[in-house]
Amino acid sequence: MDLKTIGEFGLIERLKAGAIVVPDKVIMGIGDDAAVLKGEGGYLTLASTDMLVEDIHFTLATATAREIGYKTMAVNVSDIAAMGGIPEQALVSLGLRPEQPVDFVDELYAGLRECGQRFGVNIIGGDTVSSPRAMVINLAILGRVEEGACLYRSGARPGDVLLVTGDLGGSAAGLDTLLSPRPAPPEAVAFARERHFRPTPRVTEIRAALPAGGITAADDISDGLVAEIYTLAQASGVGIILEAAAVPIAPATRQLAAIYQKDPLDYALYGGEDFELLLTCRPDKVAAVQEAIARACQTPVTPIGNVVPATEGITIIIDGKRLPLNPGGYNHFQ
Amino acid sequence: MDLKTIGEFGLIERLKAGAIVVPDKVIMGIGDDAAVLKGEGGYLTLASTDMLVEDIHFTLATATAREIGYKTMAVNVSDIAAMGGIPEQALVSLGLRPEQPVDFVDELYAGLRECGQRFGVNIIGGDTVSSPRAMVINLAILGRVEEGACLYRSGARPGDVLLVTGDLGGSAAGLDTLLSPRPAPPEAVAFARERHFRPTPRVTEIRAALPAGGITAADDISDGLVAEIYTLAQASGVGIILEAAAVPIAPATRQLAAIYQKDPLDYALYGGEDFELLLTCRPDKVAAVQEAIARACQTPVTPIGNVVPATEGITIIIDGKRLPLNPGGYNHFQ
Repeated sequence: MDLKTIGEFGLIERLKAGAIVVPDKVIMGIGDDAAVLKGEGGYLTLASTDMLVEDIHFTLATATAREIGYKTMAVNVSDIAAMGGIPEQALVSLGLRPEQPVDFVDELYAGLRECGQRFGVNIIGGDTVSSPRAMVINLAILGRVEEGACLYRSGARPGDVLLVTGDLGGSAAGLDTLLSPRPAPPEAVAFARERHFRPTPRVTEIRAALPAGGITAADDISDGLVAEIYTLAQASGVGIILEAAAVPIAPATRQLAAIYQKDPLDYALYGGEDFELLLTCRPDKVAAVQEAIARACQTPVTPIGNVVPATEGITIIIDGKRLPLNPGGYNHFQ
Repeated sequence: MDLKTIGEFGLIERLKAGAIVVPDKVIMGIGDDAAVLKGEGGYLTLASTDMLVEDIHFTLATATAREIGYKTMAVNVSDIAAMGGIPEQALVSLGLRPEQPVDFVDELYAGLRECGQRFGVNIIGGDTVSSPRAMVINLAILGRVEEGACLYRSGARPGDVLLVTGDLGGSAAGLDTLLSPRPAPPEAVAFARERHFRPTPRVTEIRAALPAGGITAADDISDGLVAEIYTLAQASGVGIILEAAAVPIAPATRQLAAIYQKDPLDYALYGGEDFELLLTCRPDKVAAVQEAIARACQTPVTPIGNVVPATEGITIIIDGKRLPLNPGGYNHFQ
C-alpha cells in the first residue's frame, strides 16, 4: 500500500496512535488546525506547522520570493486564527539550493517579516539547510487563546448557522491566471492574484467576533470549502446543508470564471487556499457576530448554510434541489 | 552573490534583522540552540527546529525509516538539552514521495515515537505533504527550563574549564562504515553506527549536572567539536585552549580510524553529529558536575581544555605545542 492509496487523511489517523506520551499539558494533539496546550495566565498555547514544497505548493515560475515568504507566514497565521487565537512566534526552516542568490533569500525573509509584522508574529528561530532538488519552507507557529475561547472543529451542533468570512474562489481564479494567462481585465487579475499570493488570515475578524459569543466551531479554508465542510462535520458528528446561492463570490472571480469557462461555484467550493474562516454559530448570535466584525473591519461574514443532525448527511441546495454534496478538494498524495 | 559564497552563518546574520516585532516575551531569538521565551510557573519556554533533507542529511541507501525517524527526534531533543532544558512537545512535518509505501511512514513514525517516548516528548501535530523529488522531515520542538538555569552559548568566562560529555568521532566513523564498507570488527562497526543513527541527546546528563552549579555555557556538537568551540567562543567573547590529548575517543572509533586510514582526532574534531554536549564550567565546580552526572548515568564528562581571554585566540595543544585551531566542520551550502 502506498501513500497515494491511503491518502493524506488516512495517514494522519495512523500517525496519531501513541503520539502522546506525557499527556499532562496536552488538551488537543493531532487533529485540528493547531495543537492546544495548557498555558499561563488564563491562556492556552497553540502550536501548528506547515510545510511548503517547490512545484507542489508554489513555483518560481509564477511566484516571487517575497510572495512565497508572505504566503508561508499567512498560511500558518491562519491556522492560529482558526482556533480563535493570537499568533505570536514563528520558527522558520528553509531548504535552499546552494546556487540560489542571497537576494532571493533576503526577499523571501522580507515577505515572511512583512506578514509577521502585520500580525505581530516574531521569527524567533529556524534552520537553514541545503536542499538541491527542491526548495522547501517549513514554518512552525505558536500562539495563544483565552481558556474557554478556543474554537475546535468539533463544536458544531444541529441548529447552528454556517458562516464564512470574506469571499471564496479568488485564490483558485488567481492560480488560473498564473498557470494559463488569458486576456482579462487587469483589475480582476490583480484582485485574484492578490488573493492567491497574499491571503489575509482572519485574525482581526475572529478576535473581534469572540466576545459576541455563540461561535461553536471554526476551521480555515485551505483545502476548499467542501473539504473543510466535511472535516468540520465529521469532527463534530453533524450534518450540513450548504446553500449554493449564498456562497459569497467576488465579481472579479466571476469575471475570471467566465473567461476560463469555469463555474464560479467550482472555484468557490473546490478551489482552496482562500484562507477564509468557516464558522458555525448559534442562530441567536449571528447578528451580533456580524456586527462585531463589521465594527472591527470591512470583512463581510455570510450565512451559507445550516448544521443539521448527522443522519441528514452533507448536502447542498442548488436551484431549489437538495443534493448530496460531492466531496473533493485537494488531497495530498492523490 | 549566492548562498555558497555567503555560507550558513553569514545567512543567519542577515535573517536576524527585523525578526522580532513584539519583544515582550522573547528572551533569546535567533542565535542559540533554541529560542527562549518567558514561560509559566518559574519556567522559560524553549523552541527549536531542524530540517533534514534526503541525500543531504540522510540517505535511504544506508538508513532505515526507523533510524531516520529516531535521529530526527534525537537531533531536536539535543537542542533542548543544550539549553539545559526538558524536551516536551514536537510538531513533525513530512514531505514524502507519493509512491512511498505506507509501511515506510509507519516505521519513520515508530522511530520518532521511540525516541520521543525515551525522552518524554509528545508529537502534538504536524503536516504531511507531497515532495516528489526529495524526502524532507522538519521537526519543531518545545521544552522548558527553570528561570536562571537556562544555558546559553554566550556564558563562558576566562578561567572556566571546557568539558565534553561522552566520546567524540563515533558518528563520523559510523558514516564511513556506511558509505564505504570495509572489513572491520563487527562490534566496532555496530558501536559507530549506533552513534551515527541513534545518538543519545544528553538530557539526563545536563539535568543531573545543573543542580551542582558552575556550568556557564553549553552547546551541542552537531557540526563538529571545533565548529562548536568557535561558535561558543565567539558567542562568549573568549578564547579557548583545546588539549588534543584529552579529547575522549572510544576504542572502537580508533579501530575504525586505523581501518579507514584516518586520524581519529579528525573524526573527533571535525566529524560532527555526535550530539554530545560541550560545556564550560567554573573550575571549582568541575568535580561536583562530574559526580552529579556519574550518580545519574554512566556517561563520562571529560575536561578537554580551558577558557582564556579572547586575545589569546582559539588554539589547540598537540604534542606539547600550542597551535592555532584550524576551523572547519560542516558548513551548509559549502
